[in-house]
Amino acid sequence: MNVGVGVPPGSVGAVVPQDAVFDTPLAFKSGATMPSYSLRYETYGKLNADRSNAVLVCHALNASHHVAGWYADDPKNVGWWDNLIGPGKPVDTDHFFVIGVNNLGGCHGSTGPATVNPATGVPWGADFPVVTVEDWVETQARLATRLGIDRFAAVIGGSLGAMQALQWTIAYPDRVRLAVVSAAAPRLSAQNIAFNEVARQAITTDPDFHGGNYYAHGVVPRRGLRLARMLGHITYLSDDAMAEKFGRELRGGGYKFGFDVEFEIESYLRYQGDKFSTYFDANTYLRITKALDYFDPAFAHGGSLTAAMAPAQARFLVVSFTSDWRFSPARSREIVKALLDNRLDVSYAEIDAPHGHDAFLMADPRYHGLIAAAMERLLA
Amino acid sequence: MNVGVGVPPGSVGAVVPQDAVFDTPLAFKSGATMPSYSLRYETYGKLNADRSNAVLVCHALNASHHVAGWYADDPKNVGWWDNLIGPGKPVDTDHFFVIGVNNLGGCHGSTGPATVNPATGVPWGADFPVVTVEDWVETQARLATRLGIDRFAAVIGGSLGAMQALQWTIAYPDRVRLAVVSAAAPRLSAQNIAFNEVARQAITTDPDFHGGNYYAHGVVPRRGLRLARMLGHITYLSDDAMAEKFGRELRGGGYKFGFDVEFEIESYLRYQGDKFSTYFDANTYLRITKALDYFDPAFAHGGSLTAAMAPAQARFLVVSFTSDWRFSPARSREIVKALLDNRLDVSYAEIDAPHGHDAFLMADPRYHGLIAAAMERLLA
Repeated sequence: MNVGVGVPPGSVGAVVPQDAVFDTPLAFKSGATMPSYSLRYETYGKLNADRSNAVLVCHALNASHHVAGWYADDPKNVGWWDNLIGPGKPVDTDHFFVIGVNNLGGCHGSTGPATVNPATGVPWGADFPVVTVEDWVETQARLATRLGIDRFAAVIGGSLGAMQALQWTIAYPDRVRLAVVSAAAPRLSAQNIAFNEVARQAITTDPDFHGGNYYAHGVVPRRGLRLARMLGHITYLSDDAMAEKFGRELRGGGYKFGFDVEFEIESYLRYQGDKFSTYFDANTYLRITKALDYFDPAFAHGGSLTAAMAPAQARFLVVSFTSDWRFSPARSREIVKALLDNRLDVSYAEIDAPHGHDAFLMADPRYHGLIAAAMERLLA
Repeated sequence: MNVGVGVPPGSVGAVVPQDAVFDTPLAFKSGATMPSYSLRYETYGKLNADRSNAVLVCHALNASHHVAGWYADDPKNVGWWDNLIGPGKPVDTDHFFVIGVNNLGGCHGSTGPATVNPATGVPWGADFPVVTVEDWVETQARLATRLGIDRFAAVIGGSLGAMQALQWTIAYPDRVRLAVVSAAAPRLSAQNIAFNEVARQAITTDPDFHGGNYYAHGVVPRRGLRLARMLGHITYLSDDAMAEKFGRELRGGGYKFGFDVEFEIESYLRYQGDKFSTYFDANTYLRITKALDYFDPAFAHGGSLTAAMAPAQARFLVVSFTSDWRFSPARSREIVKALLDNRLDVSYAEIDAPHGHDAFLMADPRYHGLIAAAMERLLA
């Protein structure tokens, strides 16, 4: 919902998040169930009369429902994909009705581990179910139904968000016209899982973790979260981008021969880690990394991604970035092959970008041009 | 010193470490000084009459002076480069007298942070100086002098060991005939430093670190060491090697939807981390990563590695491995260029090996053949 007063061109303006409460029990893939839950979401643009112009934006690890615009009481808090979404932008809110949702299990307003469990009167904590990409898509589908959207014009995501877009085309083939799958992998590699595991071990071995029930102790496992975030940042940036941004620049003139911050990269990582550890919930972090590890649509099909993608009917735009070593272009090509095997309508682009995995968030004109073209084709 | 009874072919047999005590004060690059210190070392083969057949093997992060052979009371404890060194092996102890030294600041017998500081009566701990590659080479040169070796036939090292070999050719150009520089970089990249920094932060933020003086508290920062080691292992292996070795194999049949070990790679990392944290000293780990970060011979020459290598007179064998993403072949080519700029005798090989950084420890016949050829040339 946008409140368009004094809005600069290209921005959806000040936005107001909303909550949708669901009282139909949710069965998780794990076997757990939850009697009720709430999803926080935002919308930009206007749903048209035949409800055919809705776009779902799925978020990755630490993002949220706040995809575009800003808050009236916090104008510097701009949505994480604001460069892509707005009037006249590649995902044009003059034509499309865009929805961002904080995923279930998150820590930005939807029901999550820090939410009080009505059955116990204390935060869910360790009892919050392990949530999967499939579970998220199920909750997003329920939200779409609630909003009267039978079929999305597009489901868009990068990284973990792209996994959700893929899952949408498998679980609800007739509810997605276009899937934009950016900086994706069809499943994590052993190396990807390894990085997640180090992050999880950093959190769960933090003495302030208390088995996941740290809320009751009035602490949070900040040391662990901080390390997890520092490590994450290394994998989001390319070696070249880091060299370009930080190189071996020293904060002082020469070596200090101690263990305080010396290199600029150390300063950057400590800052990012410190900041993250003040606002992100550790139990959410654990569950999101598990959702990443578990996503593997081919697993139920003897390892065949082609078989896994057989239900899909959507058109696809798949984009990878040359310097992304977390989810390299080769991983996107696995997806493209599986889609082509199924005779689907696929556009694929490998963007020669230096930013690493984070390139999917950047306003590269070639990248945005591809998304704009795919979105315009929906209007034809 | 080898005790060759019942020795299988190719092995130097049971070996006995020795200690050399130095009472001449050592001035560290940091400005710190140490009045006396001790180095633990091993030797294999026999020093010849003109003392021209000595070979120094420099170790990398967690290795030691125990390079070849085994201990009579611990026959499974085989030296870390035993596949390279022994009678008839590429570094042939029938012809060469090989020395392995535990670097100063280490935790395998040489004076280090866990050693009692005679001035205080308690372990050095946080007061142990930050040690550099230059300092190590200085102590190794003193040991060589003590053993009557004016000039090494070869100085050999991989990774951080290769940095020491490079430094030898700069600091003591007339004391090295051949430098074998394997899986090297002329200095760390921002990404390399970033990984080291996460490891250091894991250790120093462990509540059991106690500012580096954990010895007095009867604890060690095992959580931090464990994380540091897990992270290290990711960078030693290639993505492909991890995929080959572990893939997405699950320990049980299917997903468990919890936070215990599920994927084989998680099990491997936890095992390696647990094991490491029982025997390695955290203060040593901190100092070794700092030595890596600081090594940058070009720094004093306005960034020119060519200028930095100008003093060198040795012949060089430089070897890199295609799948090494920690110190990629491009980093070795920087070294080769600087050596060729100085009109030095350089052989360079890029081995197409799948093992990542750890390839320098493997018995690849092409790799070992190159080292054997370079060593034989010394005998001609």
